[in-house]
Amino acid sequence: MFLKANKIPEATITRLSVYSRVLQILEKNGTLRVSSEEIAQLMDGTAAQVRKDLAYFGEFGTRGIGYDVSGLNKNLMKVLGLNKGRNVAIVGAGRVGRSLALYSGFEKRGFRNLGIFDVEHSRVGGQVGELTVMSMNEIDDFVKEHNVQMGVVAVPAFYAQEVANCLIKAGVRSLLNFAPVSLVVPLGFPVRYVDLSILMETLSFYMGIEEQKEIERANRATKRSAI
Amino acid sequence: MFLKANKIPEATITRLSVYSRVLQILEKNGTLRVSSEEIAQLMDGTAAQVRKDLAYFGEFGTRGIGYDVSGLNKNLMKVLGLNKGRNVAIVGAGRVGRSLALYSGFEKRGFRNLGIFDVEHSRVGGQVGELTVMSMNEIDDFVKEHNVQMGVVAVPAFYAQEVANCLIKAGVRSLLNFAPVSLVVPLGFPVRYVDLSILMETLSFYMGIEEQKEIERANRATKRSAI
Repeated sequence: MFLKANKIPEATITRLSVYSRVLQILEKNGTLRVSSEEIAQLMDGTAAQVRKDLAYFGEFGTRGIGYDVSGLNKNLMKVLGLNKGRNVAIVGAGRVGRSLALYSGFEKRGFRNLGIFDVEHSRVGGQVGELTVMSMNEIDDFVKEHNVQMGVVAVPAFYAQEVANCLIKAGVRSLLNFAPVSLVVPLGFPVRYVDLSILMETLSFYMGIEEQKEIERANRATKRSAI
Repeated sequence: MFLKANKIPEATITRLSVYSRVLQILEKNGTLRVSSEEIAQLMDGTAAQVRKDLAYFGEFGTRGIGYDVSGLNKNLMKVLGLNKGRNVAIVGAGRVGRSLALYSGFEKRGFRNLGIFDVEHSRVGGQVGELTVMSMNEIDDFVKEHNVQMGVVAVPAFYAQEVANCLIKAGVRSLLNFAPVSLVVPLGFPVRYVDLSILMETLSFYMGIEEQKEIERANRATKRSAI
C-alpha cells in the first residue's frame, strides 16, 4: 500500500483526514454507501479529486455502487496509521501546551496524550486536567516506557531545538512544532510546523496574485476602450 | 513578477516567509551581504533550494558576491505583499481569537489587527487588550470603512460558514479559518486552515511510511540471512 508513498502529494494526505471525518459522520447517521460525488459535496471538492486521492491507496469503490462507508473509513484510518493509536507527549505547559492537553478532539481520532512536561521548574508539579506537569529530566524514561511516538514542542523558541533533541533521542518518531523556529532533525524525520505568521504571509501572497489579476484585467479593459 | 505564480509550489511561498525572517535578523545584526549557503545554514535547508526558490521571482543575487541583505528582504516583503500592510479582523473572542488579538508578532510583519467581533451577545462590549469586542451587525460597515483584507474565523464550527459568508460579502480578500470545517468560498478565494487534528494525522501517515520502510528493511535482512 505504501509503495507509491513518495509520489503522493501532501494535499492528498490532508484530504484523507477530511474524508475520514466525513465518513465518520455518515457512519454515525447510519449511511451505508456513498458516492465520490456525495463525499465531494460534503467537503467542497470535486468527485474527480476524491477518486484520484483514493486511487493512490487501492481500489476501494465499485463503479455504479460507490463506497462502503464503514469499510472505506477503516481503510483510511489504517492508511493514516490511526488504527494503531498514537501516543503523544507535550513539552511546554504554557497557553498552547495546556490548550492542547485539554482538547479532547484528538482522542476521538486515535491520539492519546500521555504526558505534559515543562522546561521551567516553577511549572513542574502543576496540574493540567488530569495530568501533572513533569520535569524534562523524566522525559527520556517516559517516552521509552510509554512508547510515545509523537512529541509536541510548545516551548519558547530559545528552548525548541534542545527539547526536539531530547524527544528524538528518547525515541519519538515525529514532531509537531509550535515554536517559531526551524528545527534540525535527521533526514526524513517527520516534522510539521504550526506558525500562524507564515500562514498569514502565505495568504498575503495569494491575495497579491488576485490583486495583480485585477490590475491586469483593468489594464486590458482600458486598452480595449482605447482602441 | 507574478506571471509564473500558478507554477510556484506553496512550500516555496512558505519558505519565503522564513527567508525574510532570517534576513530581518541579519539586517538587525548589521550584515550587508549573504550567500545562499549562509541562508540555507540558518534555516536547515540547502543552498540549491534557496536559489531555486528565489529564482521564481527574479535575479536577486550576483554570482560570487551573494545577495544584498536589505534589498533582498525588501523584495521578498513585496512578493509577500507585506510592504503594503494588511488589515485584519478577527471573528470570535474565545481562547483562539483573544490569543491572536493579543499577539504582537504579526504587527512586526505588516499585519494590523483592527477589530475583534463575536457572534455571542454576552461577549460584545468586552475588552481584549485595547480593543472592544464588536457585534456581527457592525462587521459589514467595519470591513468596508477600514479596508479589512483578511478575516480570521475563530468561532465554533456551527457558525463558521455563516461568519465566512459575512466576511466575504463585506469585502475581505482572504480567510484564515480555525474552525474544524471546510468553508465554501468563491473559486480561487484564498483560505488557509489551522486544524491541528489534520496536521497530527498527516504526521501519523508519514510515521507509517517510516515504519513500513523499517519492516521492509527487516524483511530483506531476514531473506538475506536465509540465503
